Amino acid sequence: MQYPEFKNKHIISTKDLTKKELGVILDTAVRMDTVVQTQGFSAVLPNSLIAMLFLEPSTRTRLSFEAAAQRLGAHTVSVSDAGSSSAAKGETLADMVRVVAGYADCIVLRQPYQGQARMAADCIDIPLLNAGDGKGQHPTQALLDLYTIRKELGRLDSLKISLVGDLKYGRTVHSLCYALMPFTPQLTLCAPPELGLPRDILDDLKNHNIRCTLTSKLEEALQADVIYMTRIQRERFSDKSEYEKLKGSFVLTRELVLRGNKDIVIMHPLPRVDEISEDVDGLARAAYFRQAHNGMYVRMALLALVLGGDIP
Amino acid sequence: MQYPEFKNKHIISTKDLTKKELGVILDTAVRMDTVVQTQGFSAVLPNSLIAMLFLEPSTRTRLSFEAAAQRLGAHTVSVSDAGSSSAAKGETLADMVRVVAGYADCIVLRQPYQGQARMAADCIDIPLLNAGDGKGQHPTQALLDLYTIRKELGRLDSLKISLVGDLKYGRTVHSLCYALMPFTPQLTLCAPPELGLPRDILDDLKNHNIRCTLTSKLEEALQADVIYMTRIQRERFSDKSEYEKLKGSFVLTRELVLRGNKDIVIMHPLPRVDEISEDVDGLARAAYFRQAHNGMYVRMALLALVLGGDIP
Amino acid sequence: MQYPEFKNKHIISTKDLTKKELGVILDTAVRMDTVVQTQGFSAVLPNSLIAMLFLEPSTRTRLSFEAAAQRLGAHTVSVSDAGSSSAAKGETLADMVRVVAGYADCIVLRQPYQGQARMAADCIDIPLLNAGDGKGQHPTQALLDLYTIRKELGRLDSLKISLVGDLKYGRTVHSLCYALMPFTPQLTLCAPPELGLPRDILDDLKNHNIRCTLTSKLEEALQADVIYMTRIQRERFSDKSEYEKLKGSFVLTRELVLRGNKDIVIMHPLPRVDEISEDVDGLARAAYFRQAHNGMYVRMALLALVLGGDIP
Repeated sequence: MQYPEFKNKHIISTKDLTKKELGVILDTAVRMDTVVQTQGFSAVLPNSLIAMLFLEPSTRTRLSFEAAAQRLGAHTVSVSDAGSSSAAKGETLADMVRVVAGYADCIVLRQPYQGQARMAADCIDIPLLNAGDGKGQHPTQALLDLYTIRKELGRLDSLKISLVGDLKYGRTVHSLCYALMPFTPQLTLCAPPELGLPRDILDDLKNHNIRCTLTSKLEEALQADVIYMTRIQRERFSDKSEYEKLKGSFVLTRELVLRGNKDIVIMHPLPRVDEISEDVDGLARAAYFRQAHNGMYVRMALLALVLGGDIP
Repeated sequence: MQYPEFKNKHIISTKDLTKKELGVILDTAVRMDTVVQTQGFSAVLPNSLIAMLFLEPSTRTRLSFEAAAQRLGAHTVSVSDAGSSSAAKGETLADMVRVVAGYADCIVLRQPYQGQARMAADCIDIPLLNAGDGKGQHPTQALLDLYTIRKELGRLDSLKISLVGDLKYGRTVHSLCYALMPFTPQLTLCAPPELGLPRDILDDLKNHNIRCTLTSKLEEALQADVIYMTRIQRERFSDKSEYEKLKGSFVLTRELVLRGNKDIVIMHPLPRVDEISEDVDGLARAAYFRQAHNGMYVRMALLALVLGGDIP
Repeated sequence: MQYPEFKNKHIISTKDLTKKELGVILDTAVRMDTVVQTQGFSAVLPNSLIAMLFLEPSTRTRLSFEAAAQRLGAHTVSVSDAGSSSAAKGETLADMVRVVAGYADCIVLRQPYQGQARMAADCIDIPLLNAGDGKGQHPTQALLDLYTIRKELGRLDSLKISLVGDLKYGRTVHSLCYALMPFTPQLTLCAPPELGLPRDILDDLKNHNIRCTLTSKLEEALQADVIYMTRIQRERFSDKSEYEKLKGSFVLTRELVLRGNKDIVIMHPLPRVDEISEDVDGLARAAYFRQAHNGMYVRMALLALVLGGDIP
């Protein structure tokens, strides 16, 4: 099966994707999931070379993309640290991607500056996948989150979803808000007052008629179909005593889960530090490791789609 | 040929391996050696993806494992420095391997904490190979040492083997002691008094009726079938003048070798600094570079066995 | 097609290559260019494993070599930073390449010391490609420069070529001088007085009857078939005010190009900082990104030749 409308498409932001396009990506990821479970590999992209340019530290995302490429039969070349890159010699990102576009058939790019993924994509005529642009977007994370919700619950429309923790700086939360919009969720936004969702995203949600409830009580967030935990970083607080006071309120424990809706799907973009207790890991609905694994299927889907592979 | 008893087995310590299992690994390595010499490659693991997690610096071991995987037709994804890893974000090793186990079919792990390789293996249901856990075990090094002795001398049983240098902190020596036990060697333990073999390993050797002779004279160590040199590190000595006095006594020169048993097989886990003079390199029995090369065959054997490959 | 005279050859310096050998390399690169444009890949080296030892930072050259190897169907293992290498443990380069030669079929080596590439090659019996040895040679860069000139202009003999910028420390310029000698160019050497071409290279050029014109005016350098720009580094000047005064004189702008010979082919080894204005990029004769891309074809050619591949 082929989807010519995806061929050579850049994937920069979840805002750019229509509900129909999201559906194609998720359906393709389902096929990739099946391929991996049954055969391990599928020679969808045997003649493709994919450059992984990770100019910021990232183990999980890089390994997941590399594994995705390899399981499609594609070849990869990687940069995994800024120190050994030409960036250290003063080269612009634009020049760097122009050069790499001559070696590779697709670029996966992580770098620290918001907006630079789109700028880089505009310089080249091979597809570019944004693997995180600083405080900006991280679309493949949002897509694997969508995929996980649909896989765990069987549907995406009209779910009650709680987003918990640092909603102000967490880029995965921002990308997820936009990815969820077409599916009209009811959102519970659970954060300390200092770390609420930015005003512009709240406005965008309201303009799309998404019902949002604001709270700072984790118990309220547990009344939902899905709870999406994120880490609260100490360095975000100017008043450290405020942080010490707050941090306990946003730690999910087994006891808390069992007191609330025990069917709630528990998600986290990982890495976690201590905002989900280890005693939660054994619960059937603790989905965060499955969620991480789903990243590989979603990335296989995106690579196969933008490179015009024949989807099995 | 297949060895179902090895499939999905973790390889954590040479202490876990029976004499029969050691034999299977070495015999499989012989076949891999032949494959590489005759064809270069063999598609034993065409559908396997192996994650190389090197959270501590290591060129030799990582390249050797990656080359081993590639020569079996397997795919690889690698982390080669701690700095760019999620560890820097405070993630536990347990969480990290749980995530990676969703991408890969096997994990090769080097990290700096004794005992953590076994802990990590217990978190996942794909096989894990310990590529060094701090002061703990380095089983693939001990296995390639065994392989080298057998290849150089044609047998393993009842050999006179001298272990020289830093026997206190050298983890390759410790792993080798346990790997040798089933073959009842006569050991000469040649070290400065400060750097003798730890008491517990000495006791284990005695309990297995291994005859051990202790000395600090290199000349005595040369009366053996095999001499296994290791590096003495300056930083191990509180009294630096003691180090300066001693270091010359543990440097193997061509002249020394020719004065002793000139058929002695000379081994070293590498990297060497100056404990074997370069004028020794040209001797027929200087086996240390062949020993390093054998690492690839042994690692091919282990990867093929734990992933259930069909051994050629 | 096969060229047995190249099999197992080390590629250390352009000085070692005859005009005939240069021709074979460039002709092979043409075939590789065609292969990539038409099929993307060609299984020329399906059973080869190539070790990329980059003991100094380098994105462009490493990715280009890795992409070249992959597009030939070869396998690769890589070291991309000195920090994680055995070098940090005090191992000599000689020992390191001896060990790696047991895993791989070919070594690509970048390291910071002039002359050490040849020393390393002398230690092993698999072919070694020098990917830069400090202030010494960088032969694959010079070969891709030659390839670019021939591709852009259709010929190599008797061209007017201007070399601009830091001619004293720029190793790409030095390698290119020797690579051009057999084609009797007329050279214009355009540099600040402090950064002129070293006396020994000037002498070698004269001994080969190459006509050299020295200037410090960029306008004069624009009267040529090719202008080869390089970066002038601030740190080369003891008198920083001298640098500030000079730097503007060696910046190529669109206006300058259009005032001179507008058919001039504009080259640069990259990365550039600001010695070519971005408004030059759109000119048809701005060849520097194509030049970088050509590196992959030239490196494919060299790998295929030294490993005895069947050239398509």
